[in-house]
Amino acid sequence: MSLKFICVWTAIYIYICRVHERYFILRFVFPSVFERSIPTCCITELCASSSSSSSSSSPCISAAQPLTAGHSAHGVNMASNRVIVYGGRGALGSKCVQFFRSKGWWVASIDMAANDEANENVIVKLTECFSEQAGQVTTDVAQLLGEQKVDAILCVAGGWAGGNCSSKDFYKNTDLMWKQSVWTSTISSHLAARHLKSGGLLTLAGAKAALSGTGGMMGYGMAKAAVHQLCQSLAAKNSGMPQGAAAVAILPVTLDTPMNRKFMPDADFGSWTPLEYIAETFFSWATGENRPASGSLMQLLTSGGETQAVAAQ
Amino acid sequence: MSLKFICVWTAIYIYICRVHERYFILRFVFPSVFERSIPTCCITELCASSSSSSSSSSPCISAAQPLTAGHSAHGVNMASNRVIVYGGRGALGSKCVQFFRSKGWWVASIDMAANDEANENVIVKLTECFSEQAGQVTTDVAQLLGEQKVDAILCVAGGWAGGNCSSKDFYKNTDLMWKQSVWTSTISSHLAARHLKSGGLLTLAGAKAALSGTGGMMGYGMAKAAVHQLCQSLAAKNSGMPQGAAAVAILPVTLDTPMNRKFMPDADFGSWTPLEYIAETFFSWATGENRPASGSLMQLLTSGGETQAVAAQ
Repeated sequence: MSLKFICVWTAIYIYICRVHERYFILRFVFPSVFERSIPTCCITELCASSSSSSSSSSPCISAAQPLTAGHSAHGVNMASNRVIVYGGRGALGSKCVQFFRSKGWWVASIDMAANDEANENVIVKLTECFSEQAGQVTTDVAQLLGEQKVDAILCVAGGWAGGNCSSKDFYKNTDLMWKQSVWTSTISSHLAARHLKSGGLLTLAGAKAALSGTGGMMGYGMAKAAVHQLCQSLAAKNSGMPQGAAAVAILPVTLDTPMNRKFMPDADFGSWTPLEYIAETFFSWATGENRPASGSLMQLLTSGGETQAVAAQ
Repeated sequence: MSLKFICVWTAIYIYICRVHERYFILRFVFPSVFERSIPTCCITELCASSSSSSSSSSPCISAAQPLTAGHSAHGVNMASNRVIVYGGRGALGSKCVQFFRSKGWWVASIDMAANDEANENVIVKLTECFSEQAGQVTTDVAQLLGEQKVDAILCVAGGWAGGNCSSKDFYKNTDLMWKQSVWTSTISSHLAARHLKSGGLLTLAGAKAALSGTGGMMGYGMAKAAVHQLCQSLAAKNSGMPQGAAAVAILPVTLDTPMNRKFMPDADFGSWTPLEYIAETFFSWATGENRPASGSLMQLLTSGGETQAVAAQ
C-alpha cells in the first residue's frame, strides 16, 4: 500500500512537471495569449528606437496537430506551379498564400496552425529541441510532396523582440528570435535542397537593421545576421542547393501589418512596406522576372508609399 | 498488485527514456567520446575546403557537477585583477587560464569540466533549453563573485562542424554550432553587463570565414556571423555594457591546437595562429594596451609564423 501511494504521487508529480514545462514553453511561443506585456513592451521599444525592424506576427512553433487527411499527391499534381510558404499563417505569409493562390499556384503552408486558404498545411509541433522539430517538418513535407518538386519556398516566419544585454528578458528573447528566424530559415534551406526544382527560388526573411549593430534588440539582430550569412552561404558553389536555384533574402525596415498599425498608430505608414508589394515581388522573382542574383540581401526601402528593393553591398 | 506492477514499470520506462535522452544529448556534446566519425569528418571537410576556420576544442555544455565548496569571496578578494574564461577547459581557454594566472590574476573558468589551474570553476549543466543553461551559469557566477567585479571576460568556447544545406547532419551540426558559439557568447554578454568593471573587456570568438558565405560549413558560418553582429551591438550606446567597457571579437582562420595538428598533420603550421599569441593579445587588451575600439572584429592573420590582428571593415 505504501509503494502504491509513492508510485501514484510520483506519477502525479511527473504529470504536473510536464504540464508546467509545456505551459512555460507556450508562454514563449504565444506571448500575446499568456501575457500582454511582451508584445506591448517590444513594440514600445521599437517605437522608441528610431531604428525599427521587420515584424511578421507569425510565431512558427505550434501545438501538435496531425496532418490533414488526404493531403498527398492528388492536390500536388493538379497545379503546374507549386510554392511552400513557411509561416503561411502570419500576416505576410497569409498575403503570400492569397497572392500565389490567386495566380493559380498550388500552395502549401507550414505553420503552427492551418491556413484554410492554402491547398495543404504542415503543422509544426512544439518542442525545445531543434533537431526534433526540423525532423518532423522535413518528414511531413516529404510525405506531402513525394517525388514532386516545388518552384519556390518562401520563408516568411519571424517575429520581433527587443532588449539589450542587461535586460532581464535577454535570454528569453534571444532564444525566441533564434527559434522564429533561424530554425525556420535552416529548415527551409534543407527543404530547398530536397524539394526545390532546378532554377527554383528560396526566399529568407532578414532585416535591414541587422546589417550593423542593434544595441537595443540584440537577440533579433543576431538571428537576422545569421539569416543574412546563411543566404550568402546558399549562393556558394558547394551549397547543396539545386542546380541554378537562387536564395534571396529580403531586408525590410517595418512591415505594414495590422499588428504594427495597432501598436504604432501615430507612425508614418507611408514609410512602411506594404505586404502586397512583397507578395508581388516574390511572385516576380519566382517566375524569373527581375530575380536578383543568388545570395542577394535585398533591402526594402519604402518612402511616401513607394518601395524599392535595393541590394545591400 | 496490478496497479503496483503498472506503476513500477512506468517508473522504469520513464527512467530509461531519461537516460536515453541524456545519452542522445551527450553524443552532441562529446562526439569524440561517443562516435569517432564526427570530428574526423569535420576535420576532413575543413582540410578539403581551402577556406579553413577556427577550431577550439572546447564543447561548453556539460554533465552536471556541483560548484566546488568554498568558492566564494575569499579567493576573489585576494587578487587585484580578475578574469573569467568561458571555455576555460578547451585548448585556447586553458592557455588563457595559464597565461593570466602567470601574471598573478585571479581566474575563474566556466566549462563542462573543471580546469584545475583556475582559481575557481563554474561547471555548466547539460540541457536542451537555452534559458535553463543560461540561468544556471548566471546564478552560479553571481554566487561566485558576489559584489566583486571582474576586469575581463574572455569567451573562447566554440567548435567546428561542416556540412551544407543538403547534408544529413545539417540540422545536428547547426544546432551544435549555435550551442557552442552563440549560447556561450550570449551568456558572456549578460555576465559582462552584470559583473564587468567600468572600462573592462569582453572578448568573443568569431571566425574570418564567416565574413562572407560559407557554403561547406553553413551552421558554423551562421553561428559566427551572429557572434560578429552581437559584438557590434555591444558597442552601441544603449547596449547595456558597463561604462567604457569594450567588446572585441577575434576572427581567426585556423588555430594551432594539438587537435588540429593531429587531424591535419601535413598542413602549413606557420599559417596557423599560436594560442600564446591570442592569450598575450587578450592580456594586452585587458590591461588597456593597444585595445581596439569596442565592436571591432579583429582578424588574426598568420603567415610564416607571424600573426597580425587586423580589423575587418
